[in-house]
Amino acid sequence: MSGNKKYVYDFEEGGEHLRRLLGGKGAGLAEMTRAGLPVPPGFTITTEACKEYYKRGPKFIDEIWPEIMEHFRKLEKKTGKKFGDKNNPLLVSVRSGAPVSMPGMMDTILNVGLNDETVEALARLTNNPRFAYDCYRRLIQMFGSIVMGIDRRKFEEALEEIKKKYGVKYDAELSAEAMKEVVKKFKEIYKKETGEDFPQDPFVQLRRAIETVFKSWNNPRAIKYREIHKIPHDMGTAVNVQMMVFGNFGWDSGTGVCFTRNPATGEKELYGEFLPNAQGEDVVAGIRTPYSIKDLKDRLPDVYKQLVKVAELLERHYKDMQDIEFTVEKGKLWLLQTRTGKRTAMAAIKIAVDMAREGIITKEEAIMRVKPEHIQQLLHRQIDPKAKEQHRPIARGLPASPGAAVGKVIFSSEEAEELGKRGEKVILVRPETTPEDIGGMAAAQGILTARGGMTSHAAVVARAMGKPAVVGAEMIHIDLEKEEFRVGDVVVKKGDVITIDGTAGEVYVGELPTIEPKLTSEALELLSWCDEYRKLGIRANADTPEEMRRALEFGAEGVGLTRTENMFVKGGRTDIVYEILLAETEEERRKALEKLIPLQKQDFKEILEVMDGKPVIVRLLDVQFYALVFADPEQLIEQYYKKKYEEGAGSEELMRLENLIHRVRAIRDADPQMGFRACRLGIVYPEVYEAQMRAAIEAAAELKKEGKNPILEIMVPGTAEPNELRFIRRIFEKVLKEVSEKYDVELDVKYGTMIESPRAALLADEMAEICDFFSFGTNDLTQFTFGWSRDDAERAFIHAYLKKKVLPYNPFQTLDDKGVAKLMEWAVKNARKVKPDIELGICGEHGGEPRSIEICHKVGLDYVSASPWRIPVARLVAAQAAIKEKQQKE
Amino acid sequence: MSGNKKYVYDFEEGGEHLRRLLGGKGAGLAEMTRAGLPVPPGFTITTEACKEYYKRGPKFIDEIWPEIMEHFRKLEKKTGKKFGDKNNPLLVSVRSGAPVSMPGMMDTILNVGLNDETVEALARLTNNPRFAYDCYRRLIQMFGSIVMGIDRRKFEEALEEIKKKYGVKYDAELSAEAMKEVVKKFKEIYKKETGEDFPQDPFVQLRRAIETVFKSWNNPRAIKYREIHKIPHDMGTAVNVQMMVFGNFGWDSGTGVCFTRNPATGEKELYGEFLPNAQGEDVVAGIRTPYSIKDLKDRLPDVYKQLVKVAELLERHYKDMQDIEFTVEKGKLWLLQTRTGKRTAMAAIKIAVDMAREGIITKEEAIMRVKPEHIQQLLHRQIDPKAKEQHRPIARGLPASPGAAVGKVIFSSEEAEELGKRGEKVILVRPETTPEDIGGMAAAQGILTARGGMTSHAAVVARAMGKPAVVGAEMIHIDLEKEEFRVGDVVVKKGDVITIDGTAGEVYVGELPTIEPKLTSEALELLSWCDEYRKLGIRANADTPEEMRRALEFGAEGVGLTRTENMFVKGGRTDIVYEILLAETEEERRKALEKLIPLQKQDFKEILEVMDGKPVIVRLLDVQFYALVFADPEQLIEQYYKKKYEEGAGSEELMRLENLIHRVRAIRDADPQMGFRACRLGIVYPEVYEAQMRAAIEAAAELKKEGKNPILEIMVPGTAEPNELRFIRRIFEKVLKEVSEKYDVELDVKYGTMIESPRAALLADEMAEICDFFSFGTNDLTQFTFGWSRDDAERAFIHAYLKKKVLPYNPFQTLDDKGVAKLMEWAVKNARKVKPDIELGICGEHGGEPRSIEICHKVGLDYVSASPWRIPVARLVAAQAAIKEKQQKE
Repeated sequence: MSGNKKYVYDFEEGGEHLRRLLGGKGAGLAEMTRAGLPVPPGFTITTEACKEYYKRGPKFIDEIWPEIMEHFRKLEKKTGKKFGDKNNPLLVSVRSGAPVSMPGMMDTILNVGLNDETVEALARLTNNPRFAYDCYRRLIQMFGSIVMGIDRRKFEEALEEIKKKYGVKYDAELSAEAMKEVVKKFKEIYKKETGEDFPQDPFVQLRRAIETVFKSWNNPRAIKYREIHKIPHDMGTAVNVQMMVFGNFGWDSGTGVCFTRNPATGEKELYGEFLPNAQGEDVVAGIRTPYSIKDLKDRLPDVYKQLVKVAELLERHYKDMQDIEFTVEKGKLWLLQTRTGKRTAMAAIKIAVDMAREGIITKEEAIMRVKPEHIQQLLHRQIDPKAKEQHRPIARGLPASPGAAVGKVIFSSEEAEELGKRGEKVILVRPETTPEDIGGMAAAQGILTARGGMTSHAAVVARAMGKPAVVGAEMIHIDLEKEEFRVGDVVVKKGDVITIDGTAGEVYVGELPTIEPKLTSEALELLSWCDEYRKLGIRANADTPEEMRRALEFGAEGVGLTRTENMFVKGGRTDIVYEILLAETEEERRKALEKLIPLQKQDFKEILEVMDGKPVIVRLLDVQFYALVFADPEQLIEQYYKKKYEEGAGSEELMRLENLIHRVRAIRDADPQMGFRACRLGIVYPEVYEAQMRAAIEAAAELKKEGKNPILEIMVPGTAEPNELRFIRRIFEKVLKEVSEKYDVELDVKYGTMIESPRAALLADEMAEICDFFSFGTNDLTQFTFGWSRDDAERAFIHAYLKKKVLPYNPFQTLDDKGVAKLMEWAVKNARKVKPDIELGICGEHGGEPRSIEICHKVGLDYVSASPWRIPVARLVAAQAAIKEKQQKE
Repeated sequence: MSGNKKYVYDFEEGGEHLRRLLGGKGAGLAEMTRAGLPVPPGFTITTEACKEYYKRGPKFIDEIWPEIMEHFRKLEKKTGKKFGDKNNPLLVSVRSGAPVSMPGMMDTILNVGLNDETVEALARLTNNPRFAYDCYRRLIQMFGSIVMGIDRRKFEEALEEIKKKYGVKYDAELSAEAMKEVVKKFKEIYKKETGEDFPQDPFVQLRRAIETVFKSWNNPRAIKYREIHKIPHDMGTAVNVQMMVFGNFGWDSGTGVCFTRNPATGEKELYGEFLPNAQGEDVVAGIRTPYSIKDLKDRLPDVYKQLVKVAELLERHYKDMQDIEFTVEKGKLWLLQTRTGKRTAMAAIKIAVDMAREGIITKEEAIMRVKPEHIQQLLHRQIDPKAKEQHRPIARGLPASPGAAVGKVIFSSEEAEELGKRGEKVILVRPETTPEDIGGMAAAQGILTARGGMTSHAAVVARAMGKPAVVGAEMIHIDLEKEEFRVGDVVVKKGDVITIDGTAGEVYVGELPTIEPKLTSEALELLSWCDEYRKLGIRANADTPEEMRRALEFGAEGVGLTRTENMFVKGGRTDIVYEILLAETEEERRKALEKLIPLQKQDFKEILEVMDGKPVIVRLLDVQFYALVFADPEQLIEQYYKKKYEEGAGSEELMRLENLIHRVRAIRDADPQMGFRACRLGIVYPEVYEAQMRAAIEAAAELKKEGKNPILEIMVPGTAEPNELRFIRRIFEKVLKEVSEKYDVELDVKYGTMIESPRAALLADEMAEICDFFSFGTNDLTQFTFGWSRDDAERAFIHAYLKKKVLPYNPFQTLDDKGVAKLMEWAVKNARKVKPDIELGICGEHGGEPRSIEICHKVGLDYVSASPWRIPVARLVAAQAAIKEKQQKE
């Protein structure tokens, strides 16, 4: 021993705070021991000893031995057993354990302490000579190969020979006598290969085992592992020496696994299995069937009581539901391992909430414990997990839109639509979808495509519709003529029922039972706690009264984005849009727009009524005007022309149409993302925005007259220049004044913009002067900041970027914290400098994505806005972000 | 007089520094007087007097009158004439003159001082009673209508009557006697309308005239004018009282206009005309023909000497070529007006250089004096200005690509190409052009289209080809079937010769003579001065050895951008590209690329040899790979497939083609600007960039072996993320090492990137760590910063934005100083923080645009890179920016 350095720690002396010195396993065993849990006693030789070992040669440090011996004597005292004792021998395991987990990389030797005499004692004590000799032969084999470097195959071949001799196939079938013969054979091999007898002195076994563990720190695979995982090579491993326990000492012994709560439902009850008079290996071998933990209550009430107590202790100590492995040796419970137990989403939420109620954890901890996926999972219809275990998917694709759906396979959208109308449940199966399939998709329960990515038409539309979809399932071969698809040998014909799992991206033949989506009472409780902690407000992106009602149910505090495009085309309004398009002068356009105003006013009234007392952001028209009615303007106008011609339209009307065709051709966008749309439209045709604003503001005025409390906010999309906002604001103020006078009410309507272009973000201070609020449109902002179109990126190169580690994640899914979030931060800072009370939010898709919501919190937004189904998750993540921030400050 | 305030200034007392007090005209007259120039003497009543006039009523300030009288007496003394004198009467003009020019808005009264007696004296002195009485009747008319408010038509009708009576058509044809009759008639009108006689007291005339000028400050049109031009209403006008001079006092008198240098050529010589014994009005009337100023030398040598002296004085004083109006009264030269003379581009440059050489101005001033347009104009073939005066354009369009072109009208691109091959000069006339017209455009002398804007296909391609083009000439109606076009009544048929002026956007019938473009020796001298002052380096965007040679002639110091796309397709290389595209594995792709390397190496050698010793930035492939050969990939591959099929290709080859079609379809860009191109290609198919780099670096190595000094810089396009640069840099370094070893030479090749996305600019510090240089690609950077596609913006909405003053200028032409330039500034600052010696330039189109070059200077770039023809302008503007900065610091 060098000076007064302490190289050996009893489990009672250690703990998590000494992880670097005692390794992960040693620290964990110490932690459990000190928590009063029944852990087989033992001690840990520190990583410092290992370092010293390498420093000196590598060479065993003789000075440590007395310190080890000292702790070993204590161990004997604690266990009441003695190393090498003929009646009650102590057996120990010698295990590695580095400060950083390196699973399976280093060596472990079990059953140290067995020799020709103690094996007999073990046989007597367990009343199982076969088991005792099996332990012994394992020790010789491990010690021989690991410590002494004998080729492992030599032992295996010898074992095979004896099994052949007795005509058995498995080791377990060998009798006690045969096992003794194996031991004899193994000792011969040992002697032949090493030139010496297998050491009968347990202390020699111990010392060599310890040295071997030190040595294994630098075996080639451990070095390789550290290189890959960037673990320093000079950390060293600790060595844990621990008493062996056996569950096969009789019928008051046994082995089991146990969850401290039900991992499926979260109920507070012991859950697991127990196999009496057996070791862990017997459970794995499956020769006997274990019984439920609950039966222990009657069968071994003492053990059950110990277990209940241990579960309580464990949960109090680890503050979470535990999954434990234990052994009962002569009625005494020993914990071999404990870890946080895996659980379903529903259980995770219930356990977190229950534990908080029980005072085991705080509300904050409960919130931090639940993952966004847990909440998300509750919100989609799922395939019953039990059913899933019994079935295999016939194909996999991309999980494009979550949830489960069951229905008859239909290959044509028209047919799907027809059947849908008749109330039939169908799954639309297509090579890929196009806008012409919209009707069929709407009528179907779910969508399955063979091609396309996460942003293919099918994926985008399905998500927007909230319909389960599996896309790009390339293994399915669709034959549209035969109306069938094949996966290998399996043929699925039109009308066959399939089940798709859009959450997992799986396809099953037949109908699998599904579970209704709902937020459990615990989830509702948890979310109400979240509301106490979060600083971010939560709004919804919702366009219809129905969507808004759902958003309110899920806890939305307002609407962050209402799109108005559909208000131009729904319910036969396209004829008016044609008129607007055909207008040749502003005068004519205004006349046509006049007809739209009362209709849209009604739309706005419905929306504002549902959201009464809560803010509603209305976004002005954000598409190219012609795109409202023409997906492919040229072609469709020409069709319209043909139709009119065939209907016998006059030459004047036809001439007007011809003009329209020319105009559309002249201004059709060369670029779908950066063309003539958004507020550019409002600058060139101000009368369109004026009409929209009039409809919305009149709706608010009428509701106010009726005693309601409409809170309207008007949002200008796609700005890049403050003058755009000034120009449109003049119209806004004119309309606001006119409407206020017309209805004789005082109206407080906010005016703001989406921040979607980098320039808008860069000029945030100047923009803020003209605005009451900003809403970051991070979809476009991400596109323009990178100069990447999302469609092209996700189809053509994002995959390679992630694979080649050029990007850590897809910035279209998670906010780009290096670029886009920096722009947002800049904009927030500069806007607040000019107008401290400006209202700042986000309405891009990122607003519903957990990691992005956290960024929004950090950036300092006032709220996030997400689609209704993502609102519960947003509430959770917003609370988690606030708690994390608080913790970092503490 | 209120206190000791001075209300009247002799011309000798004033100057430009008192402009606010004396008005523009008064300050100018004082300036000339004090410079010793022969200006008819006089004095100025200040704007303060005018303000006082309004303060008091408006009412004339009696206290000022003695001060005016005092100055008037001095005036009489100076002139040796007396107001109202029967022998030698003083006549004066009374003119308005505000601090800000308001041309024609306020009143002027001439010939003040004439009455029944002095008119006779004037008749005697001029020996021209007709003239004297004409002056008198004008005074009565002016005074009557302006001062007394008599309807002007009353005088005009009376004059008409008398003309009718004498049977003449023009005033000038009236005899002296007739003119006396007019005076009589006018006095009668005056009496009838005002109830009093026309005032015979010159001082009464003077006082009323002064008051009237004050009054005219607030006449309705002056108020309106100030409102429009945002001129404060409380500024007031000054009043100038000045001796009248007359050029018709005899044959030693006369009137003329004169440039101090030749405004067409810039030669240092008096240039202008003189009409003896005449007033300015006579010149305008065109009754006699004036003779050249040069003839004065012989005819009135004294006057000529005076004029030479005055010209010298004027140029020394105003430091620029002057355009003067003068009158000679009895051999005495009087300057009536002087202003900076208009001149041609060639003259502007020569005058600036000559004046600097003469020591009149400094080199800096010479540089500041020349405008970018002057240099630009010298670089395009122009229509001879003389010929232009004699012809009228039949149509106008947008000046899409500057220069003049003459040729036969041809309506088909195929035919234009055919004729072009035979050496015929043609102008391609099309409704609009498409990529199929490229061949015809290349063969034509110039292009004329009826549709399209400044960024239409025709405009963009013509500019790129350096061919004159007029586009969007909507007044021409093309009939492709008849092969003719009409403008109103004019019909131009196929084969008719026309001349187009792409600088002005004009179309002429017939062949107009043109002037060869060249830089004059003075221009070359001036540009060499510019090189002394400018801090910005000047490089060229050039792709071929020919373009680079031209760039060097124009003064390029390197190549800022060589595009490499054409190296894939020129000279039958498309077959190799097909192979690359058809390759299914990286292995196959590499094999095909191997064939390209030696060919491209040759291209690079040629380029590096021309630019020996100067840096050459080579940009790696920047288009979608498929776009190299397929404008419309799907359609064209299908055509290729059909062709191969018809050629009898084997089924295996066809299958591969089918696969290609599928692949192309799968990855065709949804967005033309933000799709799968630029360095994304180099990440997904690194072997393509590797091949390009190998070709370029091997070229440099071979030249170095030959004793040359190639300076190669490799540029990665379209980056948005530092890891892209790291990824490609690893390949770059591998290739550099391999080539260095292969050739055994030490190679110093720079590695850098274009900054084209906002994100690249935002992450400039991290990008700089990986780069030796940046080059700002401001075309894309502008598109992404705004979120606007240039094509769509310029076609659909920029026009409205400029008209509605939402934007001050088109950011695609001039760098957006609020947004894009801010990003550049940020990037420059952060890049230099990390790497102070990083080389920073610009290669977007803005690099050749004057206002943008100034911004580049301010932002602190090292160089700008522009197309060869814009290099001289860039040299000038860069010098001007440096000088401006210096001046601001001083």
